[in-house]
Amino acid sequence: MSGFPLPPGSTIGIVGGGQLGRMLALAAARLGFDVAVLDPEADCPAGRVAKTLIVGEYGDAAALDRLAAVSGVITTEFENAPAAPLRALAARGVAVAPNAKALATAQDRVVEKTFLNTVDTPTVAFAAIDATAEIGPALEWLGAPALLKTRREGYDGKGQIWVAGLGEVDAAWAAIGGRPAILEARADFRRELSVIAARGRDGAIACYPLAENRHEAGILCTSRAPAEANAALRAEAEAIARRILKGLDYVGVMGVELFELRDGRLLVNEIAPRVHNSGHWTQDACAVDQFEQHIRAVAGWPLGPTTPVAACEMENLIGPDADRWRELAAEPGARLHLYGKRETRPGRKMGHVNRLRPPP
Amino acid sequence: MSGFPLPPGSTIGIVGGGQLGRMLALAAARLGFDVAVLDPEADCPAGRVAKTLIVGEYGDAAALDRLAAVSGVITTEFENAPAAPLRALAARGVAVAPNAKALATAQDRVVEKTFLNTVDTPTVAFAAIDATAEIGPALEWLGAPALLKTRREGYDGKGQIWVAGLGEVDAAWAAIGGRPAILEARADFRRELSVIAARGRDGAIACYPLAENRHEAGILCTSRAPAEANAALRAEAEAIARRILKGLDYVGVMGVELFELRDGRLLVNEIAPRVHNSGHWTQDACAVDQFEQHIRAVAGWPLGPTTPVAACEMENLIGPDADRWRELAAEPGARLHLYGKRETRPGRKMGHVNRLRPPP
Repeated sequence: MSGFPLPPGSTIGIVGGGQLGRMLALAAARLGFDVAVLDPEADCPAGRVAKTLIVGEYGDAAALDRLAAVSGVITTEFENAPAAPLRALAARGVAVAPNAKALATAQDRVVEKTFLNTVDTPTVAFAAIDATAEIGPALEWLGAPALLKTRREGYDGKGQIWVAGLGEVDAAWAAIGGRPAILEARADFRRELSVIAARGRDGAIACYPLAENRHEAGILCTSRAPAEANAALRAEAEAIARRILKGLDYVGVMGVELFELRDGRLLVNEIAPRVHNSGHWTQDACAVDQFEQHIRAVAGWPLGPTTPVAACEMENLIGPDADRWRELAAEPGARLHLYGKRETRPGRKMGHVNRLRPPP
Repeated sequence: MSGFPLPPGSTIGIVGGGQLGRMLALAAARLGFDVAVLDPEADCPAGRVAKTLIVGEYGDAAALDRLAAVSGVITTEFENAPAAPLRALAARGVAVAPNAKALATAQDRVVEKTFLNTVDTPTVAFAAIDATAEIGPALEWLGAPALLKTRREGYDGKGQIWVAGLGEVDAAWAAIGGRPAILEARADFRRELSVIAARGRDGAIACYPLAENRHEAGILCTSRAPAEANAALRAEAEAIARRILKGLDYVGVMGVELFELRDGRLLVNEIAPRVHNSGHWTQDACAVDQFEQHIRAVAGWPLGPTTPVAACEMENLIGPDADRWRELAAEPGARLHLYGKRETRPGRKMGHVNRLRPPP
């Protein structure tokens, strides 16, 4: 294992070669690091800006060994990187951040919510569902409608369905493939917020201001930051993030998705043990963005400042939205970020735009 | 040749794999472009963040052919890229920006100053020197001391020597290797300024504010921008840049180095047909920095805004300065950029730091 802080010229290993890996790689390069990426796709977005691309499955032990051999630290761009092989690497002394526990926790919605409750962070009420027969009683307890989700995988609204009443139980169970699931009570929320938090190897924690997020069809459309929020709400969100990061002995950046209820309380919707789409606004509104912050954290560097220099609205470019690149390139206030994806598909995140507003 | 504007996913070919190429590559990636780099060094800084690295001499026709085969446009990170093979590529219909004329002009100090004078931009008085015997008469005309420089090559103060009087002529001629030279009158300047200007494929020109530059031993140490300057001086600097860019039918970013004389007049010291060290401040103080601006220009995209959002001082990290990375990483106001160079050598540019100040 390398000594920390990792000196410039070291290699950051990234499991996952999508847009988050690409933006992490660009941030690492700015600090003088080299990057090695592991991804099954030879033409993945991050591989094209990395010194080394290892083509292999995320959980392939041999491929991970090759990644470890060249890397001073291994990090992940997505929460579904298999936790077990990364745990094995760490046991051998390879530096892995965030740790396998954080990944494993975020990979299973029941484990995740159970963990969150144990560190005194509130979530919606929920029930683990292992068979169709368990849905009815849980629905009575949680109240209808409730949201049935697979315990594992599923993102951007995939693998989940609302259950409005007992008559829909069988169809809902079939719709999610009859897999181990979670049934979640509906949160009567006023809005969706998120906090992007980072924890360094020294245990220091830094949070960016809250972002307010708008989703359509389960996919993030826009984030505005800093969100309008009074001091108490901001402090509560940051306290929640601190408890989660500390509870997982976390190193790196994490996205914490929150519901603000109509009565003003905050619930944690889910955690993403990685840089997060709702933190892309930091690229153009903060001196140190979430990508550099993550690289700093995993490399054992001091965390950077998180105070924004401007307010910002981030707009995701989803599917054919990215075809507007000519128009967006000509818009003076628009900061355009495109991910280099070869194929435009409906629902696919192709890029984003940050638009700055005067400081709050 | 590709059609312009080049769509995202196209490849930008860069001749030269140093730090300027690296920062150009990072800017290109942010806009969704791929990058191919041509450099003699397999481990060059830009090659490690590019999709494709072609190892070969800058002027190698076969290597340039390979670069042209994958690139929508070919650009250069340094002014000494051989002009002739690039001219040949352009004659075949390959898009090359900036054009070979701009490179050839900047590569020869006599041609450069002659050109500058023809487009009504003032320089110091000068004389072409082809033999030691020509130095004495020129020195009498220009006044002593005068600066003897090789016509070609030489940068960061290399290949030049002051001639204080007739008694030093032979030694000076020997010191520069007895090569074709230029003898330049001394400019009685108050300070050194530069303007980073860009010209798009549509002929649009955009200039960043003036930077004030301080050199030590011929190497740029700091740039402060926007430089203190009244409206007349700013307008004159921009008018000079416009005449130069238009005169060369230039596409891309150019650094124009200026002397401000004690009487307030501006002389052009030299032009750099590329992104320029004195424009690195734009990375953290402007919405679109000089690197993205260059990529926009050569790709046929509209130029971005050049109004800074903050004032900035850029400090170069030269040689062992970069060993201060731990301290600089911990300085909240310092934005650190390191180039990934493997070996620290005295006088070698290893990175830079931008420090923002409140907007002017």
